[in-house]
Amino acid sequence: MSSCAFSTCTLQNNELMCNKHLVQFKRNSISTDLSYPKMTWHNSTTCQQSGRRLQCKALNVENNNNYNFLKGNVFQLDDVIEAQQFDRQILSAIFEVAREMETIEKMSRGNQLLKGYLMATLFYEPSTRTRLSFESAMKRLGGEVLTTENAREFSSAAKGETLEDTIRTVEGYSDIIVMRHFESGAARRAAMTANIPVINAGDGPGQHPTQALLDVYTIEREIGKLDGIKVGLVGDLANGRTVRSLAYLLAKYNDVKIYFVSPEVVKMKDDIKEYLTSKGIKWEESADLMEVASKCDVVYQTRIQKERFGERIDLYDEARGKYIVNRDVLSVMQEHAVIMHPLPRLDEACTS
Amino acid sequence: MSSCAFSTCTLQNNELMCNKHLVQFKRNSISTDLSYPKMTWHNSTTCQQSGRRLQCKALNVENNNNYNFLKGNVFQLDDVIEAQQFDRQILSAIFEVAREMETIEKMSRGNQLLKGYLMATLFYEPSTRTRLSFESAMKRLGGEVLTTENAREFSSAAKGETLEDTIRTVEGYSDIIVMRHFESGAARRAAMTANIPVINAGDGPGQHPTQALLDVYTIEREIGKLDGIKVGLVGDLANGRTVRSLAYLLAKYNDVKIYFVSPEVVKMKDDIKEYLTSKGIKWEESADLMEVASKCDVVYQTRIQKERFGERIDLYDEARGKYIVNRDVLSVMQEHAVIMHPLPRLDEACTS
Amino acid sequence: MSSCAFSTCTLQNNELMCNKHLVQFKRNSISTDLSYPKMTWHNSTTCQQSGRRLQCKALNVENNNNYNFLKGNVFQLDDVIEAQQFDRQILSAIFEVAREMETIEKMSRGNQLLKGYLMATLFYEPSTRTRLSFESAMKRLGGEVLTTENAREFSSAAKGETLEDTIRTVEGYSDIIVMRHFESGAARRAAMTANIPVINAGDGPGQHPTQALLDVYTIEREIGKLDGIKVGLVGDLANGRTVRSLAYLLAKYNDVKIYFVSPEVVKMKDDIKEYLTSKGIKWEESADLMEVASKCDVVYQTRIQKERFGERIDLYDEARGKYIVNRDVLSVMQEHAVIMHPLPRLDEACTS
Repeated sequence: MSSCAFSTCTLQNNELMCNKHLVQFKRNSISTDLSYPKMTWHNSTTCQQSGRRLQCKALNVENNNNYNFLKGNVFQLDDVIEAQQFDRQILSAIFEVAREMETIEKMSRGNQLLKGYLMATLFYEPSTRTRLSFESAMKRLGGEVLTTENAREFSSAAKGETLEDTIRTVEGYSDIIVMRHFESGAARRAAMTANIPVINAGDGPGQHPTQALLDVYTIEREIGKLDGIKVGLVGDLANGRTVRSLAYLLAKYNDVKIYFVSPEVVKMKDDIKEYLTSKGIKWEESADLMEVASKCDVVYQTRIQKERFGERIDLYDEARGKYIVNRDVLSVMQEHAVIMHPLPRLDEACTS
Repeated sequence: MSSCAFSTCTLQNNELMCNKHLVQFKRNSISTDLSYPKMTWHNSTTCQQSGRRLQCKALNVENNNNYNFLKGNVFQLDDVIEAQQFDRQILSAIFEVAREMETIEKMSRGNQLLKGYLMATLFYEPSTRTRLSFESAMKRLGGEVLTTENAREFSSAAKGETLEDTIRTVEGYSDIIVMRHFESGAARRAAMTANIPVINAGDGPGQHPTQALLDVYTIEREIGKLDGIKVGLVGDLANGRTVRSLAYLLAKYNDVKIYFVSPEVVKMKDDIKEYLTSKGIKWEESADLMEVASKCDVVYQTRIQKERFGERIDLYDEARGKYIVNRDVLSVMQEHAVIMHPLPRLDEACTS
Repeated sequence: MSSCAFSTCTLQNNELMCNKHLVQFKRNSISTDLSYPKMTWHNSTTCQQSGRRLQCKALNVENNNNYNFLKGNVFQLDDVIEAQQFDRQILSAIFEVAREMETIEKMSRGNQLLKGYLMATLFYEPSTRTRLSFESAMKRLGGEVLTTENAREFSSAAKGETLEDTIRTVEGYSDIIVMRHFESGAARRAAMTANIPVINAGDGPGQHPTQALLDVYTIEREIGKLDGIKVGLVGDLANGRTVRSLAYLLAKYNDVKIYFVSPEVVKMKDDIKEYLTSKGIKWEESADLMEVASKCDVVYQTRIQKERFGERIDLYDEARGKYIVNRDVLSVMQEHAVIMHPLPRLDEACTS
């Protein structure tokens, strides 16, 4: 069992002051789920050697800004493939960095935290939102981006080159790869191949762990806690990779209750249900959206994704519009509770 | 009626010296045409608060370069949607900045005027020329770019997401949005939604105001004046958004005369003619290109755009080739007069 | 006959120390093959005037790094169109820079050697590998990139604009153009038009000179020499532009022997064979891959490119799989000899 220290610190009068608690991180708590050989945390004395990895280090931060994180110690993640790879200590640490990043983004222009680092965004399935969000983050922190909008059509993939070949080539060009792919498991295959970190930005009907990280971060910010919350997952639970990743993440917290509300054809799959049960998370399926909404802290709506149905337009037509999270639903919810949905406005979430 | 000061100034011995005249800008002269709620000019004391807007400020300019513009005062535009939003004072100010930018682009490498600013180029209709021109300008000044070459096919638009949704998402990633869209009015819709500036880089058959700005800038540079000029607009005047925006801009000047020379099927639309008349601009339609050319300071040729005709190939075939601006036309023109055309070489302009 | 000095130098105590030999470069040795009017080498006293050209100069290099190349003197290439434009002195100089660049890439983050320079990657045929390799190199050295992934579909090319028009526009936006095109000769046409350097990143079945440069660089690194080597070129020799460029480059060295091993339908074309003969390079065609492999220092396999066959699927099926470079081939090769193939893993090279 390995252990590792994480802390956020400040430089005061050239002395390193760590003003946050020390997080004891147990390596084995991750490998219960899956083996992540590259998943490591380094403190500042060891990170200098690992030149190939993306490091958030404060060396380039200008002196006159008080970015009080990551100075001295180094927060380092390697591949981000599936939500279940995280435990709550890591989640807590990531969210703390995220909060500090929100401040940095607001307060400073031309931040150079990631200067000299190059991220490749390999998108085999187009997604302007997700791609631009990663690229914006990288550029806001002074990093650079190599981008491909539609690797499926435009790359050597069309010439019969395998994903592994492409990854071996692209890892020579960049420091980290963010990949969206149309096949479940593609991110894992890429990560097995690459010597640089791979971030899964959605792999077919598989997972979308960074979206789920953002969702859990948002829930904590809105509700104020994660332990003990009641969450209703509504819509296409069979094909929605986001909702799958979210279920895995919620399972890391205590006394969580999850309600699944979905049309029969797109019910949550058994693997997630079994995982939740094995983790002691209570869940139930319900056909009564109103009743579920009245009990939940969060009602999380997914879009019925037409593109996941392929030829089965009949199933799509059956599924969409069955459970619509609208103002009627909001009216039965508790005062503190929130609706989360993929579209910026509730109106559109309701009708599409 | 609000008023606002604009000047270009220099820093001399740490004293702010304004060596150009003070422009009195009347807010109402704009809103005669349309309401531009976000259209504002700030001087340096007020601009610091408006963090979300793109500002050309000289703070990042290196000391040893004598960029004598924008020091102290701030030149600020918000949305650029339609040519008629400008009045001649603003046009004059923009052209002055453009002249100074030409010098900067020639004289300095690695200019950092826009360092830390992020522009998103959302192109729903591909246009390498227009997109790369914006991106080049941004990068030449040290800014960064998020780009999407074909948002129509590659983005969430294909999944049924509305333009408004996309804009709300992208405004979270960037400081300014440059948008090309296939529908007239799309830029206005985007600007109504966004809290950051939106620049219309062409919206279907609507307008292309930045192209028109460049055209008017070029006319002034070539002819030496804008008041009193005679301009022949030749070609597809019904579908050419550039020529529509140009007509609006020319209407800002005194004693301008415009000749419309076009095949019957693609005549200039009534809205432009009525606008010109209401502004006291003389215009006439003519079928005699040679006669028009002999009278004009500028003959402005538009391309007959096949893609705007859709299925009506017959109309396209009828329209193209009817009025061709070639060496014969040039030979009847006055000595100082110029031909402006969308292609770099006249030969190709003539035959395509 | 013009001559020019090239050297790599270091700055020591503010004195320029040239620690490498002086290369006498004879201008005419190039123009034997073709006329390259823009092909010039400048030393530091002349380069300052040529503002429009891409220069590798060390001015921006930080003081505390010992980049011992290009200080004082300037290494400058203009267009890179065809492999035969290089002679062995230039090749030697390029490889020396490449070796130093390998060190730089490993040792430094955020190198600013090309800061303020803008490269346009105009790809009329998609190629993620090649495009990202150029873009990565540019960004690793602090330069910036304007990119178009699929200029054929997305640009004005679809509107009937000629390549020359596009080049004249794009040269106004950037300092250098890297172009992939689907037509042989396109790179030369672009270079004839542009006032900035053009690099051919593959032009249809024409050439791919930068790939060939990398191949020869790799051969020298692996085998330790270029004079006297025996190289087997295997696969599609008719359509493979890489192998054509490689043959031109190998012809620059002494006592080289080339074996062509290919299916009948995709034999090496006569122009290459005649060029090799005219340069005194021995070559022969063989149907016996095993025998050739046993004699060669390098077995270079090309992919049978389905996309070059167009409608003739029958010819493609006949060609592929006839000569497969696999472990059996490797087993008959000499101990020091190497296989070079376009895919990262031999297994895949063998079966695809």
